Amino acid sequence: MECFKKYLVEFIGAFFLVFTIGATAAFGGPGVIAPLAIGFALMVMVYAGGYISGGHYNPAVSLAAVVRGALPAKEWLPYAVFQILGGVAAAFVVNLLGAAPACPAVPYDICGVIVGEVLFTFALCYVVLLTATSSKTAGNSYYGLAIGSTVMVGAFAVGGICMGAFNPAVAISALVLGSCCCWKFVCLTVIMNLVAGALAGVVYKFLNED
Amino acid sequence: MECFKKYLVEFIGAFFLVFTIGATAAFGGPGVIAPLAIGFALMVMVYAGGYISGGHYNPAVSLAAVVRGALPAKEWLPYAVFQILGGVAAAFVVNLLGAAPACPAVPYDICGVIVGEVLFTFALCYVVLLTATSSKTAGNSYYGLAIGSTVMVGAFAVGGICMGAFNPAVAISALVLGSCCCWKFVCLTVIMNLVAGALAGVVYKFLNED
Amino acid sequence: MECFKKYLVEFIGAFFLVFTIGATAAFGGPGVIAPLAIGFALMVMVYAGGYISGGHYNPAVSLAAVVRGALPAKEWLPYAVFQILGGVAAAFVVNLLGAAPACPAVPYDICGVIVGEVLFTFALCYVVLLTATSSKTAGNSYYGLAIGSTVMVGAFAVGGICMGAFNPAVAISALVLGSCCCWKFVCLTVIMNLVAGALAGVVYKFLNED
Amino acid sequence: MECFKKYLVEFIGAFFLVFTIGATAAFGGPGVIAPLAIGFALMVMVYAGGYISGGHYNPAVSLAAVVRGALPAKEWLPYAVFQILGGVAAAFVVNLLGAAPACPAVPYDICGVIVGEVLFTFALCYVVLLTATSSKTAGNSYYGLAIGSTVMVGAFAVGGICMGAFNPAVAISALVLGSCCCWKFVCLTVIMNLVAGALAGVVYKFLNED
Repeated sequence: MECFKKYLVEFIGAFFLVFTIGATAAFGGPGVIAPLAIGFALMVMVYAGGYISGGHYNPAVSLAAVVRGALPAKEWLPYAVFQILGGVAAAFVVNLLGAAPACPAVPYDICGVIVGEVLFTFALCYVVLLTATSSKTAGNSYYGLAIGSTVMVGAFAVGGICMGAFNPAVAISALVLGSCCCWKFVCLTVIMNLVAGALAGVVYKFLNED
Repeated sequence: MECFKKYLVEFIGAFFLVFTIGATAAFGGPGVIAPLAIGFALMVMVYAGGYISGGHYNPAVSLAAVVRGALPAKEWLPYAVFQILGGVAAAFVVNLLGAAPACPAVPYDICGVIVGEVLFTFALCYVVLLTATSSKTAGNSYYGLAIGSTVMVGAFAVGGICMGAFNPAVAISALVLGSCCCWKFVCLTVIMNLVAGALAGVVYKFLNED
Repeated sequence: MECFKKYLVEFIGAFFLVFTIGATAAFGGPGVIAPLAIGFALMVMVYAGGYISGGHYNPAVSLAAVVRGALPAKEWLPYAVFQILGGVAAAFVVNLLGAAPACPAVPYDICGVIVGEVLFTFALCYVVLLTATSSKTAGNSYYGLAIGSTVMVGAFAVGGICMGAFNPAVAISALVLGSCCCWKFVCLTVIMNLVAGALAGVVYKFLNED
Repeated sequence: MECFKKYLVEFIGAFFLVFTIGATAAFGGPGVIAPLAIGFALMVMVYAGGYISGGHYNPAVSLAAVVRGALPAKEWLPYAVFQILGGVAAAFVVNLLGAAPACPAVPYDICGVIVGEVLFTFALCYVVLLTATSSKTAGNSYYGLAIGSTVMVGAFAVGGICMGAFNPAVAISALVLGSCCCWKFVCLTVIMNLVAGALAGVVYKFLNED
């Protein structure tokens, strides 16, 4: 039952994150709005659910937490499942509301996808581990702002050359949303996200070992 | 007298929230400005009045606080009255200044109103209860940022398909402001806001029971 | 000597606040940029200098602090002088750089000036007193964010109907900057700012008396 | 080995700061996006790495910390080297991705470069020292927000009259990025940044001496 509370929090947070992504792509204007809304949606949910589930909402972050030792390995799969379910549910709701973001006509360049997703998923997991799991910064009030802002910065910086998911649950939900219609790019994105998350866990351990 | 201090704080906060809504709709540019200003107006008033009245400025939030047990039930009505008075007073001042936001020509779709208002009023009350009323996060400095940002994110995400009030006091004030001229939509919005607030209280209790 | 440190901090903060106002009006684009830059400039200086001088940078805020009992009355005049000197110095530097913001062709409506300056100077001083001088919120990390954001929200909400100074040092500097060329409006703004600051001090005392 | 951890953190932070600068100039829209993304990129990295290396990512900030006594003088050179390496590496990655920001056709006015870079590098180092190295504000959660926002404000205020680097590592990386092609302006910028950093250290010591 305690576990289900964590899963419910992960579901809710991933739902609002992906709903915001889909709704700002569908109804919002161009430019500054979508990255700002998405980054702050993540921030809000991290602050709300952090003390219950850790506030990951992202299988790559959960993997980084496993590597770092902040989440038991056996929890990774249910976390990822509820994160993906939350994201997919949100994508269905956005679609029901009649929004259908166009699939980008020109598929992304593979090199850009790899660099963009790896760099900012690494940055995101690095920021999560250092601000939200280190005993040296315990009790701080900035972790949610830092985590959400990393996604906002990443969306501004590499949103034009890759999906800017930095999150396998978001990448998979994009198939339902229709903002990406190419399985191959989604798979590549998911793999790059997980690789970057694991790498951030290793770097964290190096930086914080005695 | 102690009670009146709380009601005065709720009046002041709701006044500035609705004044900002009316003034940015009337004088501000389109796009990013109104949601940014509105979210930060709420944030500022939550930080200012939080330690006196709780900083609700929203009957749906007050209802969530009653369900969660953070506000005595008998306080809900005076809280709601002063919140609505503050909002309506602000709407009159905006109108005196000569601003008359146009009533949207095409009425909103009912389905969009229900989904938009329920989802983000739930998110708002969920964030309020988890960041500002839980003993596990007591003393944090982020609750106002999280609460205000939830409204900003909601305005970006669903501001195009519903009023984006997430707050019965705002919805009622919109009739005075002229930004909504349809009683039926206001009533629907108010009901959805209160339902979502009560639901957030129930979810909070489930997540935090021992 | 201890006093001079406080005055120097007030000078530096008011300098950067007015420099940002002048420079974003002169070089920045329209719309969201100037209020965002101005609000965050104030936030930054409040966080930096708060523990030394209180971080007012505003004679109306200093007056509110005097009424509330957080600043000795005899300190008000030197605070105001150094705040105005800092602002005027910044205005001269902006002018030296070749920027000459146009004087608004149509003078503001007097009613708008009074309402806009009173409302948001009151909000600013109310937020300062409640977040930065109350023993009940001592040690918080949000006061600078709340204070700077109040000015940003005010600039968005009433920047079109009044100078949006909320600060006599800014209003006086506007004469040097050339963004206002009318002594009468500057005098009216200064008086409204001081009245609103004193009123916020009175409201604070009512809210916090035992 | 402990030292190398600090250098690695400085490398990573400077990498993401310069990558964001290059990528938002290359792929981002005009106006509000680049300063917002750059300021928040710095904020995020300051919060993440602050407890390990101090989170400078900027030789001028490191120089200010040396003058103030928060960093041993012998650490300045390796800090600066890793900061510059991180920035240059990011600039190469941005170029590999095919972005080539145009060199400004009209070179900046020398007077504007001096005033702009000195003023906001001073503001940045002043804010860093007061919010992140003073015992009187130890344990606060706002230092990263204040530091990153100072760069955002500076980019808005003087980004049109100088590079808006406020950071020798950024200025040098701009040569690789191609966003500045003039060695003379880069040298002038670097010198002004270091002078302003040293000046901020002196002012801090004056303000905080007993």
